[in-house]
Amino acid sequence: MKREEVFNFSAGPSVLPTEVLETAASELTNYRGSGMSVAEMSHRSRWFQDIFDETKARFRAALNVPESHEILFLQGGASLQFSMVPMNLTEDGDTADYAVTGNFARIAATEAKKYCRVHVAASSEATNFDRVPGQGELELAPEAKYFYYCSNNTIFGTAWNYVPETGAVPLVCDMSSEILSRPVDVSRFGLIFAGAQKNMAPAGLTVVVIDRALAGRERAITPLMMSYQRMIDKDSMYNTPPCYNIYLLGLVLQWLEKQGGVEGMERIKKERAAKVYDYLAGSRVFRPCAQEGSRSDMNVTFRTGDAALDAEFVADATAAGLLNLKGHRVAGGMRASLYNAMPMEGVDRLIEVMKAFEVKHHV
Amino acid sequence: MKREEVFNFSAGPSVLPTEVLETAASELTNYRGSGMSVAEMSHRSRWFQDIFDETKARFRAALNVPESHEILFLQGGASLQFSMVPMNLTEDGDTADYAVTGNFARIAATEAKKYCRVHVAASSEATNFDRVPGQGELELAPEAKYFYYCSNNTIFGTAWNYVPETGAVPLVCDMSSEILSRPVDVSRFGLIFAGAQKNMAPAGLTVVVIDRALAGRERAITPLMMSYQRMIDKDSMYNTPPCYNIYLLGLVLQWLEKQGGVEGMERIKKERAAKVYDYLAGSRVFRPCAQEGSRSDMNVTFRTGDAALDAEFVADATAAGLLNLKGHRVAGGMRASLYNAMPMEGVDRLIEVMKAFEVKHHV
Repeated sequence: MKREEVFNFSAGPSVLPTEVLETAASELTNYRGSGMSVAEMSHRSRWFQDIFDETKARFRAALNVPESHEILFLQGGASLQFSMVPMNLTEDGDTADYAVTGNFARIAATEAKKYCRVHVAASSEATNFDRVPGQGELELAPEAKYFYYCSNNTIFGTAWNYVPETGAVPLVCDMSSEILSRPVDVSRFGLIFAGAQKNMAPAGLTVVVIDRALAGRERAITPLMMSYQRMIDKDSMYNTPPCYNIYLLGLVLQWLEKQGGVEGMERIKKERAAKVYDYLAGSRVFRPCAQEGSRSDMNVTFRTGDAALDAEFVADATAAGLLNLKGHRVAGGMRASLYNAMPMEGVDRLIEVMKAFEVKHHV
Repeated sequence: MKREEVFNFSAGPSVLPTEVLETAASELTNYRGSGMSVAEMSHRSRWFQDIFDETKARFRAALNVPESHEILFLQGGASLQFSMVPMNLTEDGDTADYAVTGNFARIAATEAKKYCRVHVAASSEATNFDRVPGQGELELAPEAKYFYYCSNNTIFGTAWNYVPETGAVPLVCDMSSEILSRPVDVSRFGLIFAGAQKNMAPAGLTVVVIDRALAGRERAITPLMMSYQRMIDKDSMYNTPPCYNIYLLGLVLQWLEKQGGVEGMERIKKERAAKVYDYLAGSRVFRPCAQEGSRSDMNVTFRTGDAALDAEFVADATAAGLLNLKGHRVAGGMRASLYNAMPMEGVDRLIEVMKAFEVKHHV
């Protein structure tokens, strides 16, 4: 199939802007007259250092990251952060608050138990993660070293529509599946991390934004690659960083600026998601999985209530070039991931295919 | 400059085969009619699973990896392996042998001290790592859980020209800067690892080959992403792997097959290195840094003995399109990294520029 015939609703790795890939392709054998590809450049070269510095500056500008916070380009995915956070921010016997609102928050909480006491400050597990608890439901441990949450739960299609109030306890947030889709008051966070493969770049890059005041207290058994302070001191280049992913992030950030930055992306994402949720509200076949008030603009989960019908819909959509709409195996149903690079046409086509499915089933 | 005018002698990230980059460029916006880039494909998709399986099979075939050993595609670079090895292969109080023959072996040994007793089985630090100790010089600790060495010391241009005999003690080897450049009897190794960015793919991928019998004994505080057993169980996809790098490794392996596999690469590398070392042997200006018998075919280190003259040569070479010949800051002098993808023409050009430099200085 041609690229323009396909819409990729994958939850991650996910669709990248076509113009970013076209630029990358045109520069892949020779980056701007260097005679080299970015994929084969020394990370200590002036060529790459310029790419690195510019990408970092664009990221800082895009999210308006204050100078109190460092931006790190690391490896290992969000999953390595699940360990890196407690290894750096707690000592033996310390407590950390975890809000368990989805699969990855649960894994993060389980992982943290290796290193500290985990206090579950909130959980929506009882209703299979179909909602995010409100501020009034949070049970905060006053001695907590940090409060951890995942702001967008990719698998279940829920999102935190507020930033928790935790007093002096620093917020640590996994923003993997919503970063750069809206403005964030970074000064309210002690640490933000995100795997790149949803809104930023190909898999293999993890962006961390950390209040420098939180770094430098990693425990003695922390692997050398997992010390935030070392990575701050070495500007993410203690060892060779994932250079090509960083370059692609830079191209994505340039594209993002042309969309009006994160403010522009927020307008677009709300329009995209509203189209789907509005359609679902009136559908006689499909219904949303997440509770109202907790619904994600990035990952819209829905189902028919009949697994065979779900499978038929996914097959119809795939035949129409709408790919990867099958829900995660732990959630079932369908999931349309509407990340930054999803064109509005993809949403319109999705709704057309949903309408056709309803007609086919005589409703 | 045009790509064909440039020869990139960088020690890592390093030159990739032009035909690999051309193929990648042609597939970057649409991989073989999928309508998607490999950079944006779900790692759970059939498209990517096929790429993954084929790449792994090609790697297994290229190095003739026996079925007793698993091949893992991880993140974090060799530096994360410096921690992962002792976290998985030792318990508190255990001893491990380390041969300290270069900068990265020294860092690995220092890192291992966080987790176990490090017994330095050999060191060439006293002569600034200009050689590799022979078998007779190794002082083996009989109780060691493994014997660790780095088979090619990128910074100092030395290589182990033999595989150490350690009896029942498993060999653990960092092959980052020589993997796929020669045949290896993998059955003699407990664990081999290599960052991809020299002979395999862009930075951001680490290949581990591990005897399955060594896995499954990680200590309790091991981060979830750093358990070899978990990565074996999940076939390297506990979380999202660095998909695009794996795809490029697959292309490099296809290219490698056309060069005659690792046997072909070994012939070529010996020819490349012999040209430079033979030239150095007769030069009145340049001399090799590494001692005879310990010299690397992958990284040829040399110097004039005069820092100003070294700098002048590097400038002349750069002007001629021969890039990244400056030695590592801890070693000084020059370094020509002659990895798999370095064309013979690059070596010939290097020698021409060296000759011209001698003429310029009236010798």
